[in-house]
Formats: sequence, C-alpha cells, structure tokens
Amino acid sequence: MGGGEELVLRNKQVIFNKHVSEGLPKESDMEIRESSIQPKVAEGDKDAILLKNLYLSCDPYMRNRMKKLETPSFSFEAGKPLNGYGVGKVIDSTHPDYRKGDLVWGMTGWEEYSLIIAPDGLFKIQDTDVPLTYYTGLLGMPGITAYAGFYEVCKPKKGEYVYVSAASGAVGQLVGQFAKLLGCYVVGSAGSNEKVELLTNKFGFDAAFNYKEEQDLDAALKRYFPEGIDIYFENVGGKMLDAVLPNMRNYGRIAACGMISQYNNERPQGVHNLMHVVTKRLRLEGFVAFDFYHLYPKFLEMILPFIKQGKIIYVEDKAQGLESAPAALIGLFTGRNVGKQLVVLSHD
Amino acid sequence: MGGGEELVLRNKQVIFNKHVSEGLPKESDMEIRESSIQPKVAEGDKDAILLKNLYLSCDPYMRNRMKKLETPSFSFEAGKPLNGYGVGKVIDSTHPDYRKGDLVWGMTGWEEYSLIIAPDGLFKIQDTDVPLTYYTGLLGMPGITAYAGFYEVCKPKKGEYVYVSAASGAVGQLVGQFAKLLGCYVVGSAGSNEKVELLTNKFGFDAAFNYKEEQDLDAALKRYFPEGIDIYFENVGGKMLDAVLPNMRNYGRIAACGMISQYNNERPQGVHNLMHVVTKRLRLEGFVAFDFYHLYPKFLEMILPFIKQGKIIYVEDKAQGLESAPAALIGLFTGRNVGKQLVVLSHD
Repeated sequence: MGGGEELVLRNKQVIFNKHVSEGLPKESDMEIRESSIQPKVAEGDKDAILLKNLYLSCDPYMRNRMKKLETPSFSFEAGKPLNGYGVGKVIDSTHPDYRKGDLVWGMTGWEEYSLIIAPDGLFKIQDTDVPLTYYTGLLGMPGITAYAGFYEVCKPKKGEYVYVSAASGAVGQLVGQFAKLLGCYVVGSAGSNEKVELLTNKFGFDAAFNYKEEQDLDAALKRYFPEGIDIYFENVGGKMLDAVLPNMRNYGRIAACGMISQYNNERPQGVHNLMHVVTKRLRLEGFVAFDFYHLYPKFLEMILPFIKQGKIIYVEDKAQGLESAPAALIGLFTGRNVGKQLVVLSHD
Repeated sequence: MGGGEELVLRNKQVIFNKHVSEGLPKESDMEIRESSIQPKVAEGDKDAILLKNLYLSCDPYMRNRMKKLETPSFSFEAGKPLNGYGVGKVIDSTHPDYRKGDLVWGMTGWEEYSLIIAPDGLFKIQDTDVPLTYYTGLLGMPGITAYAGFYEVCKPKKGEYVYVSAASGAVGQLVGQFAKLLGCYVVGSAGSNEKVELLTNKFGFDAAFNYKEEQDLDAALKRYFPEGIDIYFENVGGKMLDAVLPNMRNYGRIAACGMISQYNNERPQGVHNLMHVVTKRLRLEGFVAFDFYHLYPKFLEMILPFIKQGKIIYVEDKAQGLESAPAALIGLFTGRNVGKQLVVLSHD
C-alpha cells in the first residue's frame, strides 16, 4: 500500500486456474482475485496506457485458449488473468497516440484495470453515437468476422441460398442480416425456440429452426433448402457440417468461422461427407478476423449508417459485474446466451 | 447376320452387371459379352460417328459410377457396357467435323466399336508425334486434372512445400513434376516400394514414402515436412487427410481431386481435424477436370514441348485386351497399377 497521494486502485481480476483440454469448462477453472494496481503508468514504462475496462467480450475462440496449445503464447496462462477483447477508457498514458479519456476496443485483461504496454492490438473508438457495448460485438471483432467471412470469403451473389448455424450468436445474427440486405434467401439455426423467434422476427431471416428439435438434420436442411445451399456460414462443425455437405449446391462455399460444437471434445467428431467437396466443387475456407482488420475503416463506413437507420440491429446478452464473467464465458458452450455475450464492468 | 456386302462387325463389350454400393468391386460385377455392330453409321443417324476404340482409360472416379447414385444418369447402367475415357479412330461419320481416320479422345464405350451420337464429349487429336496412349492420361483428362488442380486451384508459388498422395498415379505423377518445374519442394506417398522408387528416381520428387509402412502418418509427415505443408494435392481422403490437416501451414491450400481410399466404403471414414481449417485459414477446394476443358489448348501448348524435351515423363500400366479391362479397373482400388492404368484394345 503506497501512502500519501500515491493511492493504489483495487483491481479485481478473473484468474485462470488451469488448462482444460476436454469437457465443458467450469466456473472453478477460474477464480476472482482482488489485486491492486498503480493509478498511473510508471515513468519508466514507455508507450504504455492504463485502461479502465468497461466491457469484456465473451467469445467462443476463448475455449481453445483454455487448452494447453502447441504455441504456448496462445493459451491462457495459469495463475494470470484471462485476456480477450473488451472496451476500455484510457486513464493514463505515456503513448503519444493515446490521451486520458480516449475510448478504445481491443485486447485487454479480464480485470478492472489493465496496464497495456505497446498497445498495438487496440482501436481508438471515434463514433460514440452508438451503444459503446457494440464495440465488443457488432462494431468489434465479431462484426469484422461476419463482414469478412460473408463478403470476402463467401463472395455471395444476390438470390443465393444462405445457411447460417449458431445464427443468433455474435457473428451469425449479422451474417443473416448482411445476406438479407444483399437479397439472398437466408435460413438460420439455433438451439432454443426463443432464439429461433429472434431470427425470423427480429433479424429478418426467411426461416429458422431449432436444431435440437430435429431428429434428422439432413431432412431439416432438405425441407428449408429444397434447391440446396450455395453458402454455408459455419460456426458449429461436427454433425452439422456433415449434414450440410450433401445439401450443398455445385460451386458452393463454406466459410469456416468456428466449430463451437467441437471445442469441448478432446477428439473432435469425424466428418464423413467430404467427398461432396470434390463432386460438387465446393470451397471450404477458414478465416480469422485478425487478417481483415485493415478493412475495419471500410467496414465502419458501411455499418454505421445501417445501424443509425435501423437497418442492422444487434441483440446483446449482458452479464453484470466481473464476478459474473466466468459463468458468462462458460454459458457460450451450453448456448445459455441469447445474442452477443458480454460482461459489463462499468459504464464509464 | 446380314449377307452380301453388309457385313457386321464383331463387337466385344464389357457389360456392367449390377450396382456395387460397398466393398471392393469384383470382376464378376462385369462380364465380357460378344455383340455385333453395323460397320457404318445408319443414314438416319445425323451427326454421329462410329469409333474403333484403341485404348480405354481406367480412372478412380469410375468407382462412384458403379454405385446407384442419386442422379441415375451418372451411374453405369446394369446390362449395358461401361463407358469412360478412351482413344479411338473414326471409321465412319455423318458429323461434318469428323472424317474417317480422325483420331479422338473422350467419352466412349467399353467395347471394340462405339456408335456415338452428337460427339460433344470428344476432342480431336492433332499431335500424333507422342504416344497415342498418352491421350488417356498425360494428354487427356488426368493431365487436365493435374494442370487445373495444381495451377488453378492450388495457386502455387516457387519454394512452397507440396505434398501429393497417390503420387505415382495418373494425376499425382504429373502434379509432382509440375511442382518441381516451378521450384517447389515436393514429397509424394504411394503404396509400394516400387512406386516410391519411381517417385524419387524417375519423376524427381525430393522425397517419397510408402504410406503402408508408416505406423503413424502424422509422424511421417512431420519428418518430411518439418516446416509444414503449403499445398496438399488430395487424392486419397480419410486418414491421410486427417494426418495432413495438423501439418498444414497457415494459408495452406488443399486441392481435393479425389478420395480413393473411401470409394469402397458405404460410410466414409470420419475426418476429425477440420478445426485446423479455421485456425490456419486453410482452403480446401474440390474441382473436376470437366470445368477446365476450356484450358485444354493452353495446356497442350505448355505440355507438348515439355514432353518432347523429356522434361515431363509419364509412366503407364497397360493391360492387354478387352478381357483384361475388369481386372484392370478393379486393380486401381487395390493399388495394383503402377502409373496410369489403361487397356490396350488395338494399336490402329
């Protein structure tokens, strides 16, 4: 504890306890720890900023980082706070590009305050005329993911048949809306009737179904796509991918964004129907948002007017307080969240 | 039997007996039948040609046509001769573009003579300065397959790491040579030591291995590609694809040409490692030669000089006589053939 004017800030953190290679992670794989942090960047720390974290983003890719990966720096470090995307406010800076009061989104710690040295992974928030939470989703990494995956990877054409799995999630809800704006026929699937309702009533999908209520995914897809699927936006993998492949049309494209159904399996389920890739000349292409960040300004130029005109809407699931973060993260893998999952630490 | 000058020609045929959905096809799934055919195109048959078949091509895709397919016209018809690629000589024609004596390659029957109405699927052979048998392989469908798959689908760059499975086959041996001509590092796998010898000693692969002698395909690939694989030319599917995926480098490309290891399975083996498609941003793309036939003139322009200069060589496995055709076809699926399998009916 420093005395006098040199007060320290309480800094609650979500600590990662141990690697989880298989199965659903548990809240006890993380713990809340109270720590403290200096309220200013130390003079010796050049090009650093001190961030007050406002919102933390819960994203499916984080499940892989809970595993012990071949590239250790991709894994969360046991005994340290998790990190991920978030929105924060600069409260001190020795970096020439950042000033106190600046709002940013990007990689930060799962804690109240983060000291970030060489903040290359941050974007300054210019437009605050939209909900700030959107920068964890629609206007952040999931937004660029949907944009790049749909427009750049799928190369969609008006009138094409588009299928989106995990369609009410952070990315899926946007892909469906982009596809509708382009004049495609769009069907989404999700894991509850509430989510299915959202897809058709709120996001304007042409149709939607609850995959948990379908005995036969192949039959369900044939019902919704009697002519077959041109574009599959793949968020789940496993059995769903296997059911989709025979329903693809010639020259179909599958943007492989994620495979959330498989993240808790040590050995992922086998996919049997890959021969359709040959006979139908399919393109299955993986991508990560990171490779498309150079398109962010172009993306904002397109999306901000759509948001302001109400042509793109976004549903968020907000957990309140740092203590709720572990459960919120785990909830992604049981489908508990409805819409983009984030954690609210503070509104300013 | 017609009398006088109206003799008929004996026409031995390979008849397809019944559909084989699962397991290795047997010779008894086909039978040799002696039939007869008129030696001239009937006057009423407009735009038809009568072909004397010289060489028949045995190709892996024919296994699928032995199944009862959803699109029945893709399946062989029970009680009728098989058909496939071949080389033939026009002995009569009512088609303005074909004259007696013309040599052609393309779709024909598995029989001594074929009457072909509206011969859209045929190419006239212009260059006879090379072995005519090459038009079943190097200069025919397998050649375009290798050319399109490697250059158009894989988009290779000099210095990249290329892996080819079924590498001594009709397509694989060419892909390896194309890759070497471009300055890539190329490793091939095949199913016998004799074939492995061919790969390194005859086709100039940098290295090769016998996949049947590898307990652990993943370990074998790591041995040959310590830096990982940029391009995988996929001919086999199943376990091999599963072993390749974790060994791909970021932004790698997999040209899915065929999956011969799976053709005899009613339910193909599962492929578990598809998550690497996402994390490594892989592109897995299927293609069929048919879509690239417009490139055939360009392909010939490239390949003919290479053949004449000895820069591209081609190994063929020639079965003699129509009676040997069923065994030759089945041999593809046990790997009996060494090089491109064809059947010689007649040399002129």
